[in-house]
Amino acid sequence: MAPSRIPDGEQRGWIVPIGGAEDKEHDTAILRRFLKLSGGSSADLVVIPTASRLADTGDRYEKLFLELGAAQVEVMDFDTRRDCHEPGRVQRLERASGIFFTGGNQLRISTMLGGTPVAQAIRARNAQGVTVGGTSAGASILSEHMIAYGVEGASPRADSVRLAPGLGLTNRVVIDQHFRQRDRLGRLVASLAYNPFAVGIGLDEDTAAFISPDNTIEVEGSGSVTVVDADDLQFSSMHLVGENEPVCLLGLGVHILTKGATFNLNTRKASAGSLAPPKT
Amino acid sequence: MAPSRIPDGEQRGWIVPIGGAEDKEHDTAILRRFLKLSGGSSADLVVIPTASRLADTGDRYEKLFLELGAAQVEVMDFDTRRDCHEPGRVQRLERASGIFFTGGNQLRISTMLGGTPVAQAIRARNAQGVTVGGTSAGASILSEHMIAYGVEGASPRADSVRLAPGLGLTNRVVIDQHFRQRDRLGRLVASLAYNPFAVGIGLDEDTAAFISPDNTIEVEGSGSVTVVDADDLQFSSMHLVGENEPVCLLGLGVHILTKGATFNLNTRKASAGSLAPPKT
Repeated sequence: MAPSRIPDGEQRGWIVPIGGAEDKEHDTAILRRFLKLSGGSSADLVVIPTASRLADTGDRYEKLFLELGAAQVEVMDFDTRRDCHEPGRVQRLERASGIFFTGGNQLRISTMLGGTPVAQAIRARNAQGVTVGGTSAGASILSEHMIAYGVEGASPRADSVRLAPGLGLTNRVVIDQHFRQRDRLGRLVASLAYNPFAVGIGLDEDTAAFISPDNTIEVEGSGSVTVVDADDLQFSSMHLVGENEPVCLLGLGVHILTKGATFNLNTRKASAGSLAPPKT
Repeated sequence: MAPSRIPDGEQRGWIVPIGGAEDKEHDTAILRRFLKLSGGSSADLVVIPTASRLADTGDRYEKLFLELGAAQVEVMDFDTRRDCHEPGRVQRLERASGIFFTGGNQLRISTMLGGTPVAQAIRARNAQGVTVGGTSAGASILSEHMIAYGVEGASPRADSVRLAPGLGLTNRVVIDQHFRQRDRLGRLVASLAYNPFAVGIGLDEDTAAFISPDNTIEVEGSGSVTVVDADDLQFSSMHLVGENEPVCLLGLGVHILTKGATFNLNTRKASAGSLAPPKT
């Protein structure tokens, strides 16, 4: 689904995919920045723990965000698709200044929320300027084309990834998480091989891509964000190979960004940003 | 060590790094092609099992190459550096039409052979046209800058790789093996971040890069060869970061080659080769 239309004179909100296992005890840099972009001490957050099967996931984030200074946090879980049609919940989302998806299984979010008024409300809120983020499964769900599951390994095979429609806040990226820790380059690259229009972003644990309203990725956290750009792809054998065969892909561009570096999704240019201060 | 000088009017031999676990029972495509380039039915091979701590590694390859049709195969192991000074062994290498290193630990080869007459003889033979190859550790040893060991994971950290001098048949590449299977992109990229002059090649298991006398990589086997080219590297933070910190690298070129595709190490151009036959 394409992103919601941004109302005239307004700016889209930040989109914040996090690679999972973000620091919750020490510098909490990622969660603090998410909170700041959601209104800081006047933030009114909704936490959606639907991806998780653990009963206390939502409560844990509620406690964390309150400790970090949020004015209000509400945990909103969805057990059925009918829950996602409740006007009360939709109205609650319409008051939120930030919306956060926890980890778990991204297919639980997409199968529950997909196409419902709740999903539409989240999409509309982001288009109106509200920050929407998520960690692990909650990161994958944010884009239009979502990696549902896949096999691991550094080089791509034709069957190494399964895509599914996500929440569609942006169609510029395909997101993968736990990137360094679970060896997911192959499946991220395979997802681009199907159709190179999007940019692949692989998020290490405790690392987030803060995607600004003007589509610049800023990195936060202790790891790196691997950007795979297939814009100049010279050749792909994806259409020629059998299911378990390796795929030939020539001409990929790769940038490994750490905190301070940026990538502009409109121009597809990477910058060292504050990592390369001018000589004085 | 820079490659040996190629005698006037002669051509360097093929250099054949293999990613480990090459097929030995079914199509044996990699070993058959190695044998063919070493003289086929008149091949006289020397197998060097020094990397391995298993007593039967050499014998296993001797049997394999004889079954595939080699005229003669000799297993030549080295237990001490003094062994590597023996004139009899050097003379035996000077008769060989192909030299093959088994897997194991590449530091066992480099610490034993490094700088000895045996190493010089192998380098000279390759410069005179003899095929030299190896699998796993035996692949890593072939280049001038060798990955001695490193940590695994898709994104590079400053301390994720340790380089050591290898046999030096080519200085154009840094080789890593078991690439898809052991998640080694990060360490391969880190090795290029130190000095981007070389091209990184990551070999999947049962996959080989046949490097021709004119420095074109041809792929053999069931997996892929990941070529990482840092020639257009725009920025590296390697000199700025602490030991365990992630490295920022902007502007890497990546090609994933499968059988049929090629990469020219002189021009740094990838080609789809026989994967993209002209329309007729």
